[in-house]
Amino acid sequence: MASEVTKGAKAVSRPAPSRVIIEGVEPEIDGGRFPIKRTVGEEVAVSADIFTDGHDSLAAVVKYRPLGAPEWFEAPLTPLVNDRWTGAFTVDRMGRFQYTVEAWVDWFATWFKEIGKKSAAGQDVASELLEGSVLVRGAAVRAAASDADWLRQRAEVLGGSEDQALRVAAALDPELAAIMTRYPDRSRAQVYDRNLEIMVERERARFGAWYEMFPRSAAQEPGRHGTFRDTESRLSYVAGMGFNVLYLPPIHPIGRAFRKGPNNSLTPAPADPGSPWAIGGPEGGHTAVHPELGTLEDFDRLVAAAKRHGLEIALDIAFQCSPDHPYVREHPQWFRHRPDGTIKYAENPPKKYQDIYPIDFENDDWEALRAELRDVFLFWVERGVSIFRVDNPHTKPFRFWDWVIREVWDRHPDAIFLAEAFTRPKVMHRLAKGGYSQSYSYFTWRNTKGSLTEYFTELTQTETVDYMRPNLFANTPDILHEFLQVGGRPAFQIRLVLAATLGATYGIYGPPFEQCVGTPWKPGSEEYLDSEKYQVRHWDVDRHDSLRTFVARINAIRRENPALHFDRNLRFHHVDNEQMIVYGKATADLSNIIVVVVNLDPFHVQSGWVRLPIHELGLGSGPEVSYQVHDLISEARYLWYGETNFVMLDPQACPAHIFRIRRWVKTERDFDYFM
Amino acid sequence: MASEVTKGAKAVSRPAPSRVIIEGVEPEIDGGRFPIKRTVGEEVAVSADIFTDGHDSLAAVVKYRPLGAPEWFEAPLTPLVNDRWTGAFTVDRMGRFQYTVEAWVDWFATWFKEIGKKSAAGQDVASELLEGSVLVRGAAVRAAASDADWLRQRAEVLGGSEDQALRVAAALDPELAAIMTRYPDRSRAQVYDRNLEIMVERERARFGAWYEMFPRSAAQEPGRHGTFRDTESRLSYVAGMGFNVLYLPPIHPIGRAFRKGPNNSLTPAPADPGSPWAIGGPEGGHTAVHPELGTLEDFDRLVAAAKRHGLEIALDIAFQCSPDHPYVREHPQWFRHRPDGTIKYAENPPKKYQDIYPIDFENDDWEALRAELRDVFLFWVERGVSIFRVDNPHTKPFRFWDWVIREVWDRHPDAIFLAEAFTRPKVMHRLAKGGYSQSYSYFTWRNTKGSLTEYFTELTQTETVDYMRPNLFANTPDILHEFLQVGGRPAFQIRLVLAATLGATYGIYGPPFEQCVGTPWKPGSEEYLDSEKYQVRHWDVDRHDSLRTFVARINAIRRENPALHFDRNLRFHHVDNEQMIVYGKATADLSNIIVVVVNLDPFHVQSGWVRLPIHELGLGSGPEVSYQVHDLISEARYLWYGETNFVMLDPQACPAHIFRIRRWVKTERDFDYFM
Repeated sequence: MASEVTKGAKAVSRPAPSRVIIEGVEPEIDGGRFPIKRTVGEEVAVSADIFTDGHDSLAAVVKYRPLGAPEWFEAPLTPLVNDRWTGAFTVDRMGRFQYTVEAWVDWFATWFKEIGKKSAAGQDVASELLEGSVLVRGAAVRAAASDADWLRQRAEVLGGSEDQALRVAAALDPELAAIMTRYPDRSRAQVYDRNLEIMVERERARFGAWYEMFPRSAAQEPGRHGTFRDTESRLSYVAGMGFNVLYLPPIHPIGRAFRKGPNNSLTPAPADPGSPWAIGGPEGGHTAVHPELGTLEDFDRLVAAAKRHGLEIALDIAFQCSPDHPYVREHPQWFRHRPDGTIKYAENPPKKYQDIYPIDFENDDWEALRAELRDVFLFWVERGVSIFRVDNPHTKPFRFWDWVIREVWDRHPDAIFLAEAFTRPKVMHRLAKGGYSQSYSYFTWRNTKGSLTEYFTELTQTETVDYMRPNLFANTPDILHEFLQVGGRPAFQIRLVLAATLGATYGIYGPPFEQCVGTPWKPGSEEYLDSEKYQVRHWDVDRHDSLRTFVARINAIRRENPALHFDRNLRFHHVDNEQMIVYGKATADLSNIIVVVVNLDPFHVQSGWVRLPIHELGLGSGPEVSYQVHDLISEARYLWYGETNFVMLDPQACPAHIFRIRRWVKTERDFDYFM
Repeated sequence: MASEVTKGAKAVSRPAPSRVIIEGVEPEIDGGRFPIKRTVGEEVAVSADIFTDGHDSLAAVVKYRPLGAPEWFEAPLTPLVNDRWTGAFTVDRMGRFQYTVEAWVDWFATWFKEIGKKSAAGQDVASELLEGSVLVRGAAVRAAASDADWLRQRAEVLGGSEDQALRVAAALDPELAAIMTRYPDRSRAQVYDRNLEIMVERERARFGAWYEMFPRSAAQEPGRHGTFRDTESRLSYVAGMGFNVLYLPPIHPIGRAFRKGPNNSLTPAPADPGSPWAIGGPEGGHTAVHPELGTLEDFDRLVAAAKRHGLEIALDIAFQCSPDHPYVREHPQWFRHRPDGTIKYAENPPKKYQDIYPIDFENDDWEALRAELRDVFLFWVERGVSIFRVDNPHTKPFRFWDWVIREVWDRHPDAIFLAEAFTRPKVMHRLAKGGYSQSYSYFTWRNTKGSLTEYFTELTQTETVDYMRPNLFANTPDILHEFLQVGGRPAFQIRLVLAATLGATYGIYGPPFEQCVGTPWKPGSEEYLDSEKYQVRHWDVDRHDSLRTFVARINAIRRENPALHFDRNLRFHHVDNEQMIVYGKATADLSNIIVVVVNLDPFHVQSGWVRLPIHELGLGSGPEVSYQVHDLISEARYLWYGETNFVMLDPQACPAHIFRIRRWVKTERDFDYFM
């Protein structure tokens, strides 16, 4: 008869099912249907419920590998409470990874625990020592040569004839336990039934500052249509504010049929330039550039010049066509037709958008269509563009995005996709699950403490953070929120600080933003008056009242403080004033701790008592604890004591503090040192 | 070129992927790995997130069928808010069912919505009418003969030459919409990617009152070992209290080796009967009966007699062996052996249980072992037993239970399995997911308002309710809770009412329960003094101070009030006294509304103001509303007004009210009528 401890080594034709249960693995999006997202160098913390029948000890690992690699790497899982185990690993390169969990009954640990209890109770453990000897001999077979001899000798001691006390001492030797841990019997291990996936992207997918501008408004003198060359001249201005992504609305030829005039009028003058989103003309479509902006070579020059300024160009991908787009002529089957033979234009009944033909993704020629649209991305990737802001993705099929992002990203994992999906929550989330690196969010409409706290808790403290990265635009050409219309310069500062510190990625649409432009098309509208969407504008970027230096300061603070490079470390703190909001971010090692205090009221001085979790932040406990808070905006430094301290913010001076917390290091004579 | 509306009918070699997304389907246990549970006649409410790109209208159904049936039944899903859809169906027979969700773009509904808006705005809809004509003609092809002609005629009208106003009226005719709904174009429907499963059991799996007793203590005169015949004589007593399941601890031959004496002593006298859980002797094992109880024929008689009393016998299945069990001799490979050749007895180091050999489910002969254990269940099923209380399932492999329950239940879906798993929460839940109909719970240790409220909210208001049914034992031979030790008769009444009304299924271990036996083995222990586990006891069931009639009243109330037959309808209500708890259950149609008020303090009179959600209960709103509360225990009736009313309970009289709420029907002369 085989004893239990030797069976692992014995060949059994059909082994009994594993006794180990693995469930509740996190993160896992929709039962493993979608990947989680990380960037290179980030940690993946994995947890799972792991247990077996009875009281045997278990051991567990998380396994991970680049997709397609033959071998798994492993990191240990350790038990928390209530059968929950946790562990972590780091992803070190771009591309798809897989991870799963494996666990097994740890016969040696079980034996070690039991013999300890029995010998402590003074029981005879002769039989147990024999069992241990068998276990150790089994490990010797699996062990590296360097350990095998040692283990064999130890097995002989346990099973030998020495005094029982000496053999028990050898059994309980921590060195034995340590070496045995390296050579577990995993013949009856259980592997979780799904390989889960990770999209590992580059850092810019997680952390970046975006600046949106219309090249056609970049001319240095009024009255002229701006060009790529003009945009080149604007690069030092944008880079000087500390941005690292320069996002351009569509740069393609603009249709003439049903062209829109200023302020979205239906009666354009012949010289009106039209909306860049009415894509396509005789000069070409999604892979051509608008002649008035320059040539493809000019565009290539812009991309290269931007790179020298530390800026990446992001392009706007809007899969829709003006009636003049070449696709309409060459591939009429890609559009919907009415029974009378005409092509259906865009509608939101009773509104009509006759300057735009939506693409019909369900047409019989859908495979050629989607290949063509994929090639649009690949065309621009070839020209050095790898960031794409996708217009209205929620009006195209989800499974098209699932497919096209996989097609492009698996070839070019440095490609980044931003979904402009101002739509229903579940639609927005599904686009993120399908592969979008980033998503526009509802931030623009969250202006109160309650709504900001609730929304950003959802975005950063639920599983959402594992697949959806918000890109917090403070304004866009479509959205001039009422708060900016009425709140003046302090409102722009408030929204800038919120966007730049609540989110690891944020953006502004300039120059209107830094010039605090707040005039709507008409009362109650979120559209800009004389919107650049329909006309060329001229901006004097050197205006003395611009927020340019403030923006530059905020972006410098972001760059210099790694705590601000992440979303998931956001925590809200208490302040006893509903007009103020306080939150913080810290690095895992607490070497960088940021606390942001914002007065949400652009009109009045507000003050309150802020309560910080000083113990969690590694600052100590009790009211006597002191630490320095260093306002990185104003450079003022304050000495705070204990959990609760007072703040007051005058929006006319500056509506926010971005504090770096500096811990007291030591006192020597008259000096305090803070690190 | 094909227009969008005709494509559904056209054969396309490879259609475009469906545009519809279905996710977040509920109920769904662990991503569909485990079935939900229902009983015959119960409703299955299903919800899901369903959406598509753009603004097209959708239609959706939940599909269901008995496992293996070729055709699906369908029930409509309707939208709630935020892209959530819901619907329900009823399961009408025992066995496994499948369900899933299907949804599609509803071209007709989309068109109907749009033409309505356009015509309301006075737009020319000539082209839209032609589109509609194509849609209606397409439906005619799919339609039943009775509708096809009508639809064809209507298509001709829409596409005809009549005045546009008349054709629009025909388009907006609700009858057309109603008929079109019957013949949707589902050629591009999306089906949810998993078929989810339902275990449909008989009502007793959900609703039952259990009585546990030791047959060996059933003799009418002291000093004699009770028998199955004696148990037969006890049936009218048990049935008279209103129970419908009579659960017997193991009835098999008891081992002699290392037999335990009274109060778990290791020094039994020769006549001591031992523990019934030390199963197996020379007379046989799990398919034999203990000779002192009688013969198998006596047992069959008992089963038949019980049935005549409306009682089902539940047997205790404890898969462990005394050293004298035939398996030890015939299948020594089913047990674990030490290196010295001896079989390992049960241990919890340093404690030893030498009267019990655990079974080794990982032995090389595991397939023969599990087949044998399955046959133990089948043996008793053949003898008319279909309820099994499984002892310590958490010390045997989960995948063994998954398998054996499927093997037995798929052959005999009237079999009911109760897991005695007083263990860690996740282990208990996993056993339930694996197929157990019912589970022991932590109820026994939940005695305060806070802990009862928290625990029963978890059991009834989370997804737990879809797979785990608690069986609330108020006491067991292993658990005499301190509350019963110190609280006297009121404590037993309190725990009985809580068990019987919080849970659709509950149980007591008698006669100790109804005789209010509260003496522990020793202070601080939950074991009974002179426990029946180790010795024969004699009970005078006719004692005048027994709770027998109180138990009978409570069981009658349960039987007569369908609201108490379910767990998921439990709702806690407010009362401003921490020593009191108030909760209710109602049927979906509100025809039966029960409100339970319990004084949790067995020592003092307690009173408080109860607040009921009278609007939700269909009683009306405002302080003037009046309704009758009829205490089904005392038969007292009170007139209550509005939401908040006063209650006072003296534990010496009765520590609980079980109110049936009777709505006012009409006032006629001097009489009030309540239904």
